[in-house]
Amino acid sequence: MKHLILIQCKDRVGLVYLITHILSKHNLNITAMREFVDESDKHFFTRIEFSGELQSEQSLQNELKEHLPDGTSITINPKPEKKIALLVTKEHHCLGDTLVRHFFDTLNAKVCCVIGNYDDLRPFTERFGIPFYYISHLEKTKEDFEGEILTVLKSHQPDYLVLAKFMRILSPGFIDHFPNQIINIHHSFLPAFIGANPYRKAFERGVKLIGATAHFVTNDLDEGPIIEQQTIPVNHTFGVPEMVTSGREIEKSVLSRAMQLVFQDRVFINGNKTIVFE
Amino acid sequence: MKHLILIQCKDRVGLVYLITHILSKHNLNITAMREFVDESDKHFFTRIEFSGELQSEQSLQNELKEHLPDGTSITINPKPEKKIALLVTKEHHCLGDTLVRHFFDTLNAKVCCVIGNYDDLRPFTERFGIPFYYISHLEKTKEDFEGEILTVLKSHQPDYLVLAKFMRILSPGFIDHFPNQIINIHHSFLPAFIGANPYRKAFERGVKLIGATAHFVTNDLDEGPIIEQQTIPVNHTFGVPEMVTSGREIEKSVLSRAMQLVFQDRVFINGNKTIVFE
Amino acid sequence: MKHLILIQCKDRVGLVYLITHILSKHNLNITAMREFVDESDKHFFTRIEFSGELQSEQSLQNELKEHLPDGTSITINPKPEKKIALLVTKEHHCLGDTLVRHFFDTLNAKVCCVIGNYDDLRPFTERFGIPFYYISHLEKTKEDFEGEILTVLKSHQPDYLVLAKFMRILSPGFIDHFPNQIINIHHSFLPAFIGANPYRKAFERGVKLIGATAHFVTNDLDEGPIIEQQTIPVNHTFGVPEMVTSGREIEKSVLSRAMQLVFQDRVFINGNKTIVFE
Amino acid sequence: MKHLILIQCKDRVGLVYLITHILSKHNLNITAMREFVDESDKHFFTRIEFSGELQSEQSLQNELKEHLPDGTSITINPKPEKKIALLVTKEHHCLGDTLVRHFFDTLNAKVCCVIGNYDDLRPFTERFGIPFYYISHLEKTKEDFEGEILTVLKSHQPDYLVLAKFMRILSPGFIDHFPNQIINIHHSFLPAFIGANPYRKAFERGVKLIGATAHFVTNDLDEGPIIEQQTIPVNHTFGVPEMVTSGREIEKSVLSRAMQLVFQDRVFINGNKTIVFE
Repeated sequence: MKHLILIQCKDRVGLVYLITHILSKHNLNITAMREFVDESDKHFFTRIEFSGELQSEQSLQNELKEHLPDGTSITINPKPEKKIALLVTKEHHCLGDTLVRHFFDTLNAKVCCVIGNYDDLRPFTERFGIPFYYISHLEKTKEDFEGEILTVLKSHQPDYLVLAKFMRILSPGFIDHFPNQIINIHHSFLPAFIGANPYRKAFERGVKLIGATAHFVTNDLDEGPIIEQQTIPVNHTFGVPEMVTSGREIEKSVLSRAMQLVFQDRVFINGNKTIVFE
Repeated sequence: MKHLILIQCKDRVGLVYLITHILSKHNLNITAMREFVDESDKHFFTRIEFSGELQSEQSLQNELKEHLPDGTSITINPKPEKKIALLVTKEHHCLGDTLVRHFFDTLNAKVCCVIGNYDDLRPFTERFGIPFYYISHLEKTKEDFEGEILTVLKSHQPDYLVLAKFMRILSPGFIDHFPNQIINIHHSFLPAFIGANPYRKAFERGVKLIGATAHFVTNDLDEGPIIEQQTIPVNHTFGVPEMVTSGREIEKSVLSRAMQLVFQDRVFINGNKTIVFE
Repeated sequence: MKHLILIQCKDRVGLVYLITHILSKHNLNITAMREFVDESDKHFFTRIEFSGELQSEQSLQNELKEHLPDGTSITINPKPEKKIALLVTKEHHCLGDTLVRHFFDTLNAKVCCVIGNYDDLRPFTERFGIPFYYISHLEKTKEDFEGEILTVLKSHQPDYLVLAKFMRILSPGFIDHFPNQIINIHHSFLPAFIGANPYRKAFERGVKLIGATAHFVTNDLDEGPIIEQQTIPVNHTFGVPEMVTSGREIEKSVLSRAMQLVFQDRVFINGNKTIVFE
Repeated sequence: MKHLILIQCKDRVGLVYLITHILSKHNLNITAMREFVDESDKHFFTRIEFSGELQSEQSLQNELKEHLPDGTSITINPKPEKKIALLVTKEHHCLGDTLVRHFFDTLNAKVCCVIGNYDDLRPFTERFGIPFYYISHLEKTKEDFEGEILTVLKSHQPDYLVLAKFMRILSPGFIDHFPNQIINIHHSFLPAFIGANPYRKAFERGVKLIGATAHFVTNDLDEGPIIEQQTIPVNHTFGVPEMVTSGREIEKSVLSRAMQLVFQDRVFINGNKTIVFE
């Protein structure tokens, strides 16, 4: 039997030994282990894959809790397949890539629904038998708009929301419902070109590369913990449309990589940074 | 005989034909040609390598001038080996890389001198028989500091200044002496992390890639036309020192690439952008 | 009106002038031009985008033919949207990526059918309303197998066949029906790991990067003209399955890039090499 | 006090616990730990950085040996600065890069001498005060040639030989003197283009990327364990000379990266593969 444990706590001497000792007492064999200490705030993170007969997750959890520092967070065998909801506007490339991966069971997640503030992507979504909810932001307050989205989400209970090119800024109130559970793809190498129209800004600045960033959403616009970033070269022949076209390729690549890492429980959040055990 | 011509002018119908026609009349054979029209300001740029017996550069220049739009800039057979001065502070990697390329004749330029606002890099520089001028910025006004640098530069008459990790900001007055002739290497993927301590800022932001940018220096800090940019991945294990160490590799790579492109007359400047005919 | 012309011929002095002269006489304005001379066999290639009123493609063609060397190949305004047939086996990632691009009209081609030597990919294909033909290679001769494929292809008349992870080797007789019209994706950076099981070979050799290659198919296995190649890093933790999973990402990327280049008429073939005017 | 321990042995259940337990008993605190099990031959590898008062390396070694499987290899606090000899022919770029890193103390190694089978690189080498030995391979047997090299090497006792573009094939007898101690840089992405003239072969094949490989030297030509590989894109405009010029950049980059990894004791060898704990 394969198992996974995630631990984060204040750092102190001997943590690796302590944890491996407890696993050993339970006759559990470590098959892969990654650990990291953030020296700036003395925080310890570890992700351990192990095998063996685990009699009781609860008793292992209790034993670890007893010996580890106060405030330690321990997760044993997190849900292997996350349930996710996708929020979209009109751009199709991230949705398309995600639903194909989903169809062929390579997403490490179950897409429970797609919500669009335009109806454009309904035909594609429904082709895969996934419910599509069209919730326009027009002619209503942001509160009402987000309220309608929340109603849909409550009925589906997703583990994560993925903003797959969702072009509306969510309110703090909305985001508070999903702490560390919202993943966004931003079409620039943050912190360059925060906010709207990054390709236009990139064009006007005359940069020689463009990028994409997947990050958790917090209440600071485009300032949440970064999960993954990539760039590709551009040159003087690229107008905004060419940047948009080329940019789509890395947006897809960065978002799918970020989802894979998060859904495989390889990403820890520490303040506005991530620890990624690839 | 191989020749090179650089032309930039207002765009209009038939420029490529017009230019190739004139070259053809002179029995000159085009071996490589690159052209670009910036549609936003209707500007035309071309770089043509050609071969044949060129009787008189002046008469070819005159004939082209006559038929091309007013304000056309034409350069026939630019100086093949540029003369450059390097400005440095204490960091050695860009200087080291540049002087080794110079020693083995792969720089496409002649280094006439190195000017440092610290004396640290003198031993390395002198090992290659290149004059090193130590001009401290301490205990003097910026005007005096830059005046001393200008005096040295006047004696050497370089075609380009290369700021090879020169950590002082030059005044507009100084820069005006060298329009489009100063190349800087900045240790971030601009426009992210403009100004001082980009690696510290990158660390604090938790980015997953770091970069370097070579650009022409104008009077807007880190806002001049970008010549070349590259990024490399980093992860949560990188502190500031690790970013600095890894960053050096792309700083060297980006600066040497930018110098190669500029010194081979492959770079046109148009406003705050470059056209690079690689 | 925008137009495109492709010319390849023996090189001689003055070709660029000659061609631009003729276009100019027809009041056609060059908007983008790329040319290349292969010095090893003195062959000239050009791709010219131009605008203006083109009275008669035929008369332009005739005029060019008259002045250009014997054996010149001239194509004016090639079919803008190619018709393609996809051949697949069981692996879904290239097919998935291609059909999504097709659905959203970003493929620069029309997929007329998918042919599989297994039936596995039928449900996905039919979800997009595209005909799927299941032609097993089992219990029949290669000749019969290929004959059945040819019958389907004859009914669709595709411009290109794309082997989107088609795991059968096609016979010379079959390939002869589609000269320079078959694109294959091979899951290694050719010429390393020609033939079957490249990821296993890569694993056994302990390489630190894996790659993918898109190439035209000729009668030399994996030896046809290469269109596009990319690599990604791997490390000692990658077994064969992890290489397969990571490799899929670049296989998709390389194949879609190659199709885009070919379908936009940016690729010339010269012997066993390609000239790619990106 | 910071320490480093390297262990490789047959895998069995509980090794991580066992080792961390022993370190813990000695009041040593693990600050970074990497481990890997090669499942194909059930071999375990770990690299542990730890801090604390280490009373006796010998007693720690003994205690580990006692509890670990027979045949375990344990290295505690390997020599922090390796002594290396460089072997060169005429190409300067790898030598130039290495000696500059050496001069500025960023090589993690001490260059004790340079041996060239041509005298061309003597002036550069001696500029840095490093002994240069010119040992021609001409007009003598390979045995005599290698004998002369061995004599020089015996007088310097280097920990590693670095073949920095040394264009002679060394005999098995020679290589046997330096098991796992010779690092070579090969100018292709192995296993493509094994042997001589890889750039010419790459040109003739029409590849779209070229590469470089650093590997340990064994008695199979270009078949030793690979440490690091990189590729860069090329296109149809690259002749052999342009490939050589571009290739130099990654040859330098790959070799310096490989040296850094080896000299920091981050590389284990297992058969014809490496485990690299970056």
